[in-house]
Amino acid sequence: MKLVRYGNPGREKPGLIDLDGKLRDLSSVVPDIGPAQLGSIGMARLHKVNPAKLPLVRGKPRFGCPVTGVGKFVAIGLNFADHAAESGAPIPKEPIVFMKATTCIQGPNDAVMLPRGSTKTDWEVELGVVIGTTARYVAKKDALAHVAGYCVVNDVSEREYQLERGPQWDKGKGCDTFGPIGPWLVTPDELENVQRLDMWLDVNGQRMQTGNTRTMIFDAAKLVSYVSHFMTLMPGDVITTGTPPGVGLGMKPPRYLKKGDVMTLGIQGLGEQRQEVVAFKAG
Amino acid sequence: MKLVRYGNPGREKPGLIDLDGKLRDLSSVVPDIGPAQLGSIGMARLHKVNPAKLPLVRGKPRFGCPVTGVGKFVAIGLNFADHAAESGAPIPKEPIVFMKATTCIQGPNDAVMLPRGSTKTDWEVELGVVIGTTARYVAKKDALAHVAGYCVVNDVSEREYQLERGPQWDKGKGCDTFGPIGPWLVTPDELENVQRLDMWLDVNGQRMQTGNTRTMIFDAAKLVSYVSHFMTLMPGDVITTGTPPGVGLGMKPPRYLKKGDVMTLGIQGLGEQRQEVVAFKAG
Repeated sequence: MKLVRYGNPGREKPGLIDLDGKLRDLSSVVPDIGPAQLGSIGMARLHKVNPAKLPLVRGKPRFGCPVTGVGKFVAIGLNFADHAAESGAPIPKEPIVFMKATTCIQGPNDAVMLPRGSTKTDWEVELGVVIGTTARYVAKKDALAHVAGYCVVNDVSEREYQLERGPQWDKGKGCDTFGPIGPWLVTPDELENVQRLDMWLDVNGQRMQTGNTRTMIFDAAKLVSYVSHFMTLMPGDVITTGTPPGVGLGMKPPRYLKKGDVMTLGIQGLGEQRQEVVAFKAG
Repeated sequence: MKLVRYGNPGREKPGLIDLDGKLRDLSSVVPDIGPAQLGSIGMARLHKVNPAKLPLVRGKPRFGCPVTGVGKFVAIGLNFADHAAESGAPIPKEPIVFMKATTCIQGPNDAVMLPRGSTKTDWEVELGVVIGTTARYVAKKDALAHVAGYCVVNDVSEREYQLERGPQWDKGKGCDTFGPIGPWLVTPDELENVQRLDMWLDVNGQRMQTGNTRTMIFDAAKLVSYVSHFMTLMPGDVITTGTPPGVGLGMKPPRYLKKGDVMTLGIQGLGEQRQEVVAFKAG
């Protein structure tokens, strides 16, 4: 299944994308897509739904983040060896864990706003893992059973805040609009192998990042297991798993986002995002 | 006002501590103490309540975290010059911001559990600031108007996870039970000066930390303003503002918590906490 939440911000309705790529409304089945629906019982119930019997949604509504009620937005740093190299950092011996403020979460195509005075806002296409059932000290072999699905995340980052005003990265990772998620929450049965997915990101149509989840240093199963040893993962929590090479920070000279830039990004089987970059706006 | 939430975990009721130190039930006035109550209208309504007319609560119920629905648990590192020194770290030029997983939040007297295999779990008495109204790019002079109240926080930390398995600290800061908050949410009108409060923490009755909010490098107003420039602060968000010297990490040799230890800690005017340290327990 490809689950979505569509409609205006704060008023999204649940939906799914059918086999023909059409959006259908799930409001008659569930009130929303969130922690209460992501467990095995809830997901089994959704899997029984016959999409053909759901009402088609007209027009081209906005997509929100495909999951509501994200309690924790956990992120993994430097999880591609070549991205670690371009960032001038050693390859980590174990996963680097930081957190994005949940207030940064938004829909996949909502504008990304440069923070006030920011000159080093950067892009990062990443595989997002959405937790379906509570995970606490789970073994790697059991970890993926706790996953409700996968999605595209743009781990937007302000490098000055993250690296020059650190030493902790969270400051540059959770600014408003820095967490586009979606468009779809794709259930694991849809993917032949979550570690064989092409990833890409363009700025203004120019390819910046090219990668594949195959080259992640720590795979999704390892990351869910690993993080669950440091904090209990709850239904609806999102782990974003690190970015392949090609970020602005790694260019010579570095190249950062400016007003009017457009990011388009995607992961094979998980859909695409598009964000226009806008200037800081108060209020 | 001293607001509390009392009762069993997950079933807490709202209450307040009256002028005689007695617990009274607020259930007839509000359903809970959380984001919906913390704004200026909600707090004004609570201030109008005559405590003498509220039912007394019998017995000695457990206290929960005095705020429900904490969306972000933001923490400030090395905010006392002498604690920075004992940690072997330079005095920060601007606040160091990291985040504690919200799943670590618990009541002020609930047991603190050593993570599996942990040998370096440490204590940190801190002043917690609870946000009452949305704060985004607020100036320092306006910052305290966004605060609903103050509380005691024990920023429990696993130093191996934080420092040796870093470089990001969040890994050692958000383990389950690492966020005792409370007992009270104390409204600003109760405190003559939030930057003149004595702080202390004992382990097994031996004084470990002694401090005063006077010596914070960045005060509460500065921190609310500062953090609001990197993320939007929402009602119910908590900022814990850093610890004075005397943590286990800073001792020669370092001294960490073990099963059976008892932490008692408090801040002048904000009440006291007591946590027994228990061994890791699965499930």
